[in-house]
Amino acid sequence: MTAQAPGTLFTLGMGPGDPELLTLKAARILGQAPVVAYFAKAGQRGHARTIADGHIGVEAEELRFDYPATTEIPHRDSRYVDAMAACYAAAADAVAARLEQGLDVALLCEGDPFFYGSSMYLFDRLRERFPMEIVPGVLGMSGCWAEAQLPMTHGDDVLTVVPGTMTEAALHSSLLGVDAAVIMKLGRNLAKVRSVLTALGRSDRAIYVERGTMAGSRVLPLAEIADGSAPYFSMILVPGRQGPR
Amino acid sequence: MTAQAPGTLFTLGMGPGDPELLTLKAARILGQAPVVAYFAKAGQRGHARTIADGHIGVEAEELRFDYPATTEIPHRDSRYVDAMAACYAAAADAVAARLEQGLDVALLCEGDPFFYGSSMYLFDRLRERFPMEIVPGVLGMSGCWAEAQLPMTHGDDVLTVVPGTMTEAALHSSLLGVDAAVIMKLGRNLAKVRSVLTALGRSDRAIYVERGTMAGSRVLPLAEIADGSAPYFSMILVPGRQGPR
Repeated sequence: MTAQAPGTLFTLGMGPGDPELLTLKAARILGQAPVVAYFAKAGQRGHARTIADGHIGVEAEELRFDYPATTEIPHRDSRYVDAMAACYAAAADAVAARLEQGLDVALLCEGDPFFYGSSMYLFDRLRERFPMEIVPGVLGMSGCWAEAQLPMTHGDDVLTVVPGTMTEAALHSSLLGVDAAVIMKLGRNLAKVRSVLTALGRSDRAIYVERGTMAGSRVLPLAEIADGSAPYFSMILVPGRQGPR
Repeated sequence: MTAQAPGTLFTLGMGPGDPELLTLKAARILGQAPVVAYFAKAGQRGHARTIADGHIGVEAEELRFDYPATTEIPHRDSRYVDAMAACYAAAADAVAARLEQGLDVALLCEGDPFFYGSSMYLFDRLRERFPMEIVPGVLGMSGCWAEAQLPMTHGDDVLTVVPGTMTEAALHSSLLGVDAAVIMKLGRNLAKVRSVLTALGRSDRAIYVERGTMAGSRVLPLAEIADGSAPYFSMILVPGRQGPR
């Protein structure tokens, strides 16, 4: 009896939001995949799944994995880690079951798969057992600086990407001396981030972008955004040495 | 007499190399644009133009701008700056002439337009006079970490992107304490970069990638690449805290 050759797990970067920013490659694989898997918050379609509209084959099986209820607790808090681990373990089992049947699975990931993406947690769990292919996507930050028409890095500029969840001191030392910066995960950290950028003399050129490439996008100088809670799809961009003044 | 409404300059991110990593949006605009402009080294088709094959309309006018002879001198050397400035000024004039006639122009850019891309120099010169639209692309580094199947940043990781052309001391301080790093512009700087990563205890997990997503790509641990001159499409990736060990 011949063993079933396993399917391939295609992890697809879906881009920053505008469905037209999907790559030709991801669109092709989506149309061909017999199984399409994705994560979403309970009760929502999910950003990645929405981008995939129109590309998924009509016969495809869809596997939807709900994230546990998320709050803005540090990723090293054990409650967060345990809940997410259980979620990813269950998702990995479901995906593995299809791959073992010889079915290819397309796993959707907002932005790019290996840049702060949830799909990495499935990749880590399954990479030893199944063939893998990674299709990179347009990063959320690329979508935002394109939306803002903000040239970011020229020549020998250094770029640093930091999460706004860091302590004020850690943010300060991470951003000291860099040329260009992207601060993500703003959430309730906006005041803290503003304070650090001001102390570093970088706040005057900082640009706030919300929902880059999507309907309802906003682009404003940081000074024009009030403190308070920034929504999920928001970040602050600080252009490098030759950027606009 | 009514004034001619100007055309729009569409700056298109062409992605990291694999033509299938072009976005649906860039492919569409390429097919519609009456004028397609791009930079290339004298005597070569150019990376961005090659990716565009099959998408450019048969009637389109192509504007090709040759880069002056390039050597690996720092971008702040006045000889480099002057030669490049003349190149960009001439290119801007040619593009402006078409825009003034009401023709849309698609300007090709390797990777993403605002991430170390040459197209920014035309954008800067023309943005006050003409409508602009920026189409982000898949970054070269995304292509490389996908090719290497190397998860880069999880959770609260900090990512720093640095050019290998920096001094050893500047490289050291830029990379001190970061979680994930990308070192580009390796050229003849490979030994220096290796030395810095070793001093920081980061060399054992560093991965060298050449021609990510293209034919002839190479992915190797840094230890397996000899010192010497690294080709144009090469970089070193250092994954963050949760990356492979």
